[in-house]
Amino acid sequence: MTHEAGIPLGIRFKLLSDTPQDSAAQVVGDVVVGDYRDLDTLRDFARGCDVITFDHEHVPTEHLRALEADGIPVRPGPDALVHAQDKGVMRAKLTEIGAPCPRHRIVSDPADAAAFAAETGGFPVILKTVRGGYDGKGVWFVRDEQDAEEPFRAGVPVLAEEKVDFVRELAANIVRSPHGQAVAYPVVESRQVDGVCDTVIAPAPGLSEELGGQAQTLALRIAKELGVVGHLAVELFETTDGRILVNELAMRPHNSGHWTQDGAITSQFANHVRAVLDLPLGDPRPRAPWTVMANVLGGDYPDMYQAYLHCMARDPQLKIHMYGKDVKPGRKVGHVNTYGDDLDDALERARHAAGYLRGTITE
Amino acid sequence: MTHEAGIPLGIRFKLLSDTPQDSAAQVVGDVVVGDYRDLDTLRDFARGCDVITFDHEHVPTEHLRALEADGIPVRPGPDALVHAQDKGVMRAKLTEIGAPCPRHRIVSDPADAAAFAAETGGFPVILKTVRGGYDGKGVWFVRDEQDAEEPFRAGVPVLAEEKVDFVRELAANIVRSPHGQAVAYPVVESRQVDGVCDTVIAPAPGLSEELGGQAQTLALRIAKELGVVGHLAVELFETTDGRILVNELAMRPHNSGHWTQDGAITSQFANHVRAVLDLPLGDPRPRAPWTVMANVLGGDYPDMYQAYLHCMARDPQLKIHMYGKDVKPGRKVGHVNTYGDDLDDALERARHAAGYLRGTITE
Repeated sequence: MTHEAGIPLGIRFKLLSDTPQDSAAQVVGDVVVGDYRDLDTLRDFARGCDVITFDHEHVPTEHLRALEADGIPVRPGPDALVHAQDKGVMRAKLTEIGAPCPRHRIVSDPADAAAFAAETGGFPVILKTVRGGYDGKGVWFVRDEQDAEEPFRAGVPVLAEEKVDFVRELAANIVRSPHGQAVAYPVVESRQVDGVCDTVIAPAPGLSEELGGQAQTLALRIAKELGVVGHLAVELFETTDGRILVNELAMRPHNSGHWTQDGAITSQFANHVRAVLDLPLGDPRPRAPWTVMANVLGGDYPDMYQAYLHCMARDPQLKIHMYGKDVKPGRKVGHVNTYGDDLDDALERARHAAGYLRGTITE
Repeated sequence: MTHEAGIPLGIRFKLLSDTPQDSAAQVVGDVVVGDYRDLDTLRDFARGCDVITFDHEHVPTEHLRALEADGIPVRPGPDALVHAQDKGVMRAKLTEIGAPCPRHRIVSDPADAAAFAAETGGFPVILKTVRGGYDGKGVWFVRDEQDAEEPFRAGVPVLAEEKVDFVRELAANIVRSPHGQAVAYPVVESRQVDGVCDTVIAPAPGLSEELGGQAQTLALRIAKELGVVGHLAVELFETTDGRILVNELAMRPHNSGHWTQDGAITSQFANHVRAVLDLPLGDPRPRAPWTVMANVLGGDYPDMYQAYLHCMARDPQLKIHMYGKDVKPGRKVGHVNTYGDDLDDALERARHAAGYLRGTITE
């Protein structure tokens, strides 16, 4: 999707891909298949690139430092990216700069997790491995000390966080360039099902201008304090008592910003590319009163073709984005965007299409 | 641009390109460099393709028939495409189906051209080689019999057409699928400078609903009668006496439809891909009251980078589309789209950007 956004800007990509089947490898011209965990591979790949950026956060921080030492601009740089790689580092830094977070601390074993629970009002608490988690993986909802044993098995440091009473999840998406220009997208509501993002509504319905402004200002401040270049998604809780707390950070175009492809003047992908190349940023404002993104998860049937035809025929305004992935139950294989003047209509159309493609809606 | 539109639809391209430097070859993954005039090259290339389509009309008709005989779907097919390849065939067919055309006939030599002039009210007349012309090439504005010598030098049949008194040029863009579904974009005004499209305004300002409807209906009828699959652009004259006459046909996404990338719910490129694969077509309606496309021509300076930065910084809403071509004076190297509620504003922004990129505007 970043390649797609780079084409009209005249920007050419070279891709380092795990396998020739990866979504991006199917559409980019210049593809190197290799392991991003191997420094020699990274160094060979980086030769001749003007700038390196990412569609995930898993490249080892020390390798990124080595590329920088070789004179290759890495954006976001390792000093920023480490905050999206390591939840312990992220919480420590956010606390240091006064960004509102759930109560948290690193815990050493199940008994320490129980002690954290006691300090913060009792179980349940959330335990997270500080590295390697995404889409609900590496996160445990822990009800007692015995429950707390599992997270420690991987041998990775474990972060404990209080369970926040929230009314909904929000996301503040911003893009920042090396010379400090920044743009803020409207704050969106993100609805999760089984720990995976299901639907995003832009802008977040009924969000007060004050809280929306707070969230955008917070995201811009985090980007500046952490030295982020490119796209930053700040996932937030809106608490029952009307505050916002930072849940997670992502430093790349993010699922909560996919609506911008069809719903904003400039998409998150185009602005990420513009930022990492230090080009002037594009207007982030929405093009329609409401835009809805719904993720398409794989269902029981591997062949989505008939459903794809049906969805296009049913709704000629539907914007489909398929990733070229093999369909497996629960796997994100695409998303759809709808937009319009009427939120209920946009929501119904997006949900119908995503459900029909998955096979959970059959009429 | 067609590849770009195919990415979200999950559609993968294999490209036959003249050189590795062609615009499309810079961004498509699977590129074969070869000569489209060579049947063996075409046959090797076509093996394993689900369908063949084009971004120009120059593949020899007989080669397309050979591919069809091999069982490869070619869309648009040779029986349709020949009308966009050969202006003589096009005029004969349009006349047969009663589509309004300038008066015309094939002329055999300068004296015959003078005879045609005498039949149609005198010089000047337009002479065109029936094959191989585009962007003003292969077209002569002829004031007398001596002027008429040049067009015959190539040894290609020459078509004579009366010089039409027109108030402006219009274009009706439609897309038709193999099973006969069709969509019509709003009729646009196309402004030419030195025989090259300069600006396109969507919809055509002040066009009566009646004449707009006539133009759309005419384009849909031509597509049906000629068996067009995919995008058809019908370039039209709006005459001083309030009629429309067909000027040219193009059977591929066309410059007069580039505005749809940012100005329509579904772009011409996406609908062309959907049509050639017989997928349901997308909504062609505009997203803004006015959209303006301005072509970016090369100027005297080969390096446009500073101008590109300036245009992005000046107008964060500007949509730039660069083709990755070397800049040469007068060569189309990209286009820009602007849109909004105010036509004058959109026109000023598009013209400014195109002029600044070319170097004809310096402030």
